[in-house]
Amino acid sequence: MERRKFLTGAAIAGAGAAAIPFAAPAIAQERKEMTIVSTWPRDFPGLGISAQRLAARITELSEGRLTTKYFAAGERVGAFDSFDEVASGNAQAYIAADYYWKGKHPGFAYFTSVPLGMTTSEWNAWIKFAGGQALWDEMSGEYGLKALACGATGTQMGGWFNKEVNSAEDLKGLKMRIPGLGGDVMAKLGASPVSLPGGQIYENLVSGAIDATEWVGPYNDYFMKFYEAAKYYYYPGMHEPGGGLAFGMNKSWWESLSKWEQAVITAACMEEHAGQYEEAMALNGTYLNKMVTENGVILKEFNDDIYDSFAEAALEVFEETRDHSPLAAKINDAFQKNLREIGGWTRIAEVAFSNQRNRVLGIDG
Amino acid sequence: MERRKFLTGAAIAGAGAAAIPFAAPAIAQERKEMTIVSTWPRDFPGLGISAQRLAARITELSEGRLTTKYFAAGERVGAFDSFDEVASGNAQAYIAADYYWKGKHPGFAYFTSVPLGMTTSEWNAWIKFAGGQALWDEMSGEYGLKALACGATGTQMGGWFNKEVNSAEDLKGLKMRIPGLGGDVMAKLGASPVSLPGGQIYENLVSGAIDATEWVGPYNDYFMKFYEAAKYYYYPGMHEPGGGLAFGMNKSWWESLSKWEQAVITAACMEEHAGQYEEAMALNGTYLNKMVTENGVILKEFNDDIYDSFAEAALEVFEETRDHSPLAAKINDAFQKNLREIGGWTRIAEVAFSNQRNRVLGIDG
Repeated sequence: MERRKFLTGAAIAGAGAAAIPFAAPAIAQERKEMTIVSTWPRDFPGLGISAQRLAARITELSEGRLTTKYFAAGERVGAFDSFDEVASGNAQAYIAADYYWKGKHPGFAYFTSVPLGMTTSEWNAWIKFAGGQALWDEMSGEYGLKALACGATGTQMGGWFNKEVNSAEDLKGLKMRIPGLGGDVMAKLGASPVSLPGGQIYENLVSGAIDATEWVGPYNDYFMKFYEAAKYYYYPGMHEPGGGLAFGMNKSWWESLSKWEQAVITAACMEEHAGQYEEAMALNGTYLNKMVTENGVILKEFNDDIYDSFAEAALEVFEETRDHSPLAAKINDAFQKNLREIGGWTRIAEVAFSNQRNRVLGIDG
Repeated sequence: MERRKFLTGAAIAGAGAAAIPFAAPAIAQERKEMTIVSTWPRDFPGLGISAQRLAARITELSEGRLTTKYFAAGERVGAFDSFDEVASGNAQAYIAADYYWKGKHPGFAYFTSVPLGMTTSEWNAWIKFAGGQALWDEMSGEYGLKALACGATGTQMGGWFNKEVNSAEDLKGLKMRIPGLGGDVMAKLGASPVSLPGGQIYENLVSGAIDATEWVGPYNDYFMKFYEAAKYYYYPGMHEPGGGLAFGMNKSWWESLSKWEQAVITAACMEEHAGQYEEAMALNGTYLNKMVTENGVILKEFNDDIYDSFAEAALEVFEETRDHSPLAAKINDAFQKNLREIGGWTRIAEVAFSNQRNRVLGIDG
């Protein structure tokens, strides 16, 4: 998922945020209005629903003292104008994937997901207990923003292909919709990565303008009907193994809040961060099974040869990212170090256990 | 971990909970006091600290309108009297692992963790989005309780052994501290499972009264110094692959709360449920490495032969659990069905990805 300017529409000029510089006293009666802009269309399955649920929850948890007004993509500003809308103080917060802003700075990519990176649980541990949030604060702070994790898709599928992919050779010349650093990896392997808004992928796949696309996972992908044009559904995705979506706030506004108001927003974001991931995890298996049995989808696994190629290309992409700036290098290096430390633990815990359990119980997907 | 009656002490007679039957009006000024009893000693690394953080967070998030009074194990009642203290209404909530109550009903085991069961992420998906919470409510409701998940250890280590374990044959006659259904599995394989409070494990291991013990994971285990008596540290643990700790409330009291008060407690529990898991995940690798390099710990992996034996024994244990009652059978069957569905998804997502990533990046723990 990325770069979906679903409903760009005309940007409605923001009415201007009323900055509230005074911390609320204990059990204050005052109410603050909070404008939230989003990169997802209204009622968009999974992501949009989750964003709306979060906005409502902040109002609920604060008992109406932080009253949120939620604008889906295009309802106030276009999806990709959300960053500037909040950085300028016109709105108080955006809900987005922070790698949308990697054109501004590639360091943002690490606060969503990068190729061969952390799973969602690993990323959460890094963000909250191994220095990740401090780096995110430094990155966002450069633009007058403060971000918190507020949603996660889990490890994404590798994507939809109209032919089998058995070696890196098969990727050459492939026109694939794949954004972010994952797209850069594919480009190094000779594919032509394309950025398309979500609403245009299906028609391009059907017309043959693209040969392949990634999106999210079975629950989200089912509603896109990609299986009508590309039967081969590959796993595991290398491009977005985990990480989180961002609740990006205007930093001055955030700092003007009382401790209690900050606690309410933090708790609501954490709840939705967990909930979006768990909802997808509960539904993905069911939708995958449905597509395989009802829609003729052929589930395929990327082989070792392909993954070797992904790794070689990814390491080059990370080197180039490091070259951007000292901050990009600092974020990359901290991420890679923590990936190896935390990933080293999960290898002998969740991963080793799951491999054995699945083998002895015959769990085969 | 289980059955640790660390500080039984004399139960201090509860002053009796003031039941507050009226829902609070919006922005009410009234304050409610909430007594929380816990099965963990005060300031106990990991689990105790987490429980205290949760109690403080409820007060903070409610801006003091739900003022919590926290009693560690033995400070008000003994650890294993927590259940009755809350069911009777003497206190409003306990923090515990719900499999402590499997003597009352084996169905409780599934709401902590069972052998060859779900990882924490899978269990979370089951509880919140695949019917688990409704079953938990039914189970707890039989005893006048309402529980929410409020902490997780992640996949536990297999335990500490004073000799190598290369086949099920090596388990015969082994005296091992391992509680819960995991202990039942070991008993079927000819071991002698022992229940010991946490504070007595070390001395029994040093004296040779027991040959082996499990506890939690490297971060928690480090402080127990088991490596002084048993050098072989096995992974992955089959007995507690994931799941959660319980914030068990008096059901009538819970139902007397306003929607807002319920939302505050739910959000605080969810935050700590995520946080405790992530904290352990961020620290386990570091402590494991420390014990291997500084304390002569030998990290070993259970082989396929051992896991085949675990599976055979676990399936018998589940059959016996089903035979207890219709409710036990209902919970087991729902759990096993969801394990296979959600586990089938994670097999091709987080697990397949992690296996490939670890291989190509050379992440080896």
